[in-house]
Amino acid sequence: MRLQQSSSMSAQICPFAQRTEIALHEAKADFVRYEIDLQNKPEWYAPKVNPASKVPAIAYGGPEAPPDDPSPQSVKLAESLILVEFIGDLFPQASILPADPVKRAQARFFVDVVSNKLVPGYHQYLQGKSSADDLYKVVESLESLLPSEGFAVGEYSLADIAITPFLARARVALSNDLGAYPQGEGPKVLEALTNKQGKFPRFAKYFEDLLARESFKATFDEAYLTERYKARFGNLRNQQ
Amino acid sequence: MRLQQSSSMSAQICPFAQRTEIALHEAKADFVRYEIDLQNKPEWYAPKVNPASKVPAIAYGGPEAPPDDPSPQSVKLAESLILVEFIGDLFPQASILPADPVKRAQARFFVDVVSNKLVPGYHQYLQGKSSADDLYKVVESLESLLPSEGFAVGEYSLADIAITPFLARARVALSNDLGAYPQGEGPKVLEALTNKQGKFPRFAKYFEDLLARESFKATFDEAYLTERYKARFGNLRNQQ
Ligand SMILES: N[C@@H](CCC(=O)N[C@@H](CS)C(=O)NCC(=O)O)C(=O)O
Ligand SMILES: N[C@@H](CCC(=O)N[C@@H](CS)C(=O)NCC(=O)O)C(=O)O
Repeated sequence: MRLQQSSSMSAQICPFAQRTEIALHEAKADFVRYEIDLQNKPEWYAPKVNPASKVPAIAYGGPEAPPDDPSPQSVKLAESLILVEFIGDLFPQASILPADPVKRAQARFFVDVVSNKLVPGYHQYLQGKSSADDLYKVVESLESLLPSEGFAVGEYSLADIAITPFLARARVALSNDLGAYPQGEGPKVLEALTNKQGKFPRFAKYFEDLLARESFKATFDEAYLTERYKARFGNLRNQQ
Repeated sequence: MRLQQSSSMSAQICPFAQRTEIALHEAKADFVRYEIDLQNKPEWYAPKVNPASKVPAIAYGGPEAPPDDPSPQSVKLAESLILVEFIGDLFPQASILPADPVKRAQARFFVDVVSNKLVPGYHQYLQGKSSADDLYKVVESLESLLPSEGFAVGEYSLADIAITPFLARARVALSNDLGAYPQGEGPKVLEALTNKQGKFPRFAKYFEDLLARESFKATFDEAYLTERYKARFGNLRNQQ
């Protein structure tokens, strides 16, 4: 289905931006994707699209226009979680927003834990500012919210979209031992998070299910990300 | 309309909790309100209602039960913004969530600025950790989002519910010069925020409209709050 005239400004490296891309894929939305080079942002981006100069952003509606010269008449929207909800509102049949208000609230609560515990916790661990045990506490609090099977609130929803890009990037970082945590610890932590006979069996199954989802696979280039992560985090440990 | 069997755990002092109360009032929802004494929290509150031990929370559905002995079968929900959206989902006719997906996204973006700039900015100013100019920058960014008339996205919505309790409390603190900012500055800052011929004419009109709303007035006890704020912030300046 055509999402009016619209373009999505993204960057493969960015977990927030991948949320929007997963949501657009789940919705089978027809849109123009435009890669923003975060190292060298086009000078029209902040004034014409997002004053905060971050990805993701969407230019929605208005007359036909190329993504790198957006019409002033299109609506510019930013903030990944807002965009995921927006796409969910435009494409109700994709069930990004659960139909049941209780499940919707529970999905948003899961997102809140992702935003306020997992995202900062993962970055602190990567930068060597917190321990593996601190990260495990976050994983425990997420695991305690999971139902016995299925995704965060049963059917795939915004909750799963919010967490997936961070777990995918954690897998790349940890499997390659990239980050400032103690050398050799990355693969062990990854094992703890992904072994279904291990420390967090329910979370490990959830992790596997998330990364098997078609909308994730279609929006993630593991080889590209690994290369970029090596360049960015490969030397972090020695710099501390 | 009856919101199933449900109770709302609140505390008059708490701006987050007032959001839920405003939303319930906008929705004309029938529910049982229970005041939680934050200085002396009932011991059943964390285990039976909200493990984070914060207000607001809602116990929704399940069999008839008194608010201070909630049924394990009711759904327990927390986090003010999630509760406001939940109430909006249950009572669509209250238009807490705008019907238009674009306006809905814009309302959520306004909420994001409230959460990430106004709430921390106001608390820092109160504690003498930032200047009036820092606070004015936040007000400018909010003012720039306001349409030429009406509320944050035109009709009254979750955006307005999110900000109102903080502005109401700022008015009490500033008019009484309570806080650790320089002595005598409170009333001047309040004047800047509320004079429609002053520094922020559009914001001042918005401020006035918000506090004139019936759902705000019905859920705010200015005398009580002033007394509590004097006890809590009255001596802050001398303690620095
Ligand atoms: N809260 C924002 C965060 C977005 C964000 O931080 N994006 C980063 C890339 S991952 C960005 O664009 N940063 C600006 C830059 O790198 O210059 C969201 O959820 O969309
Ligand atoms: N993010 C929460 C914040 C709620 C919050 O911080 N509530 C405070 C009172 S204003 C609370 O209950 N604090 C626990 C305490 O005082 O013990 C929300 O939006 O609901």
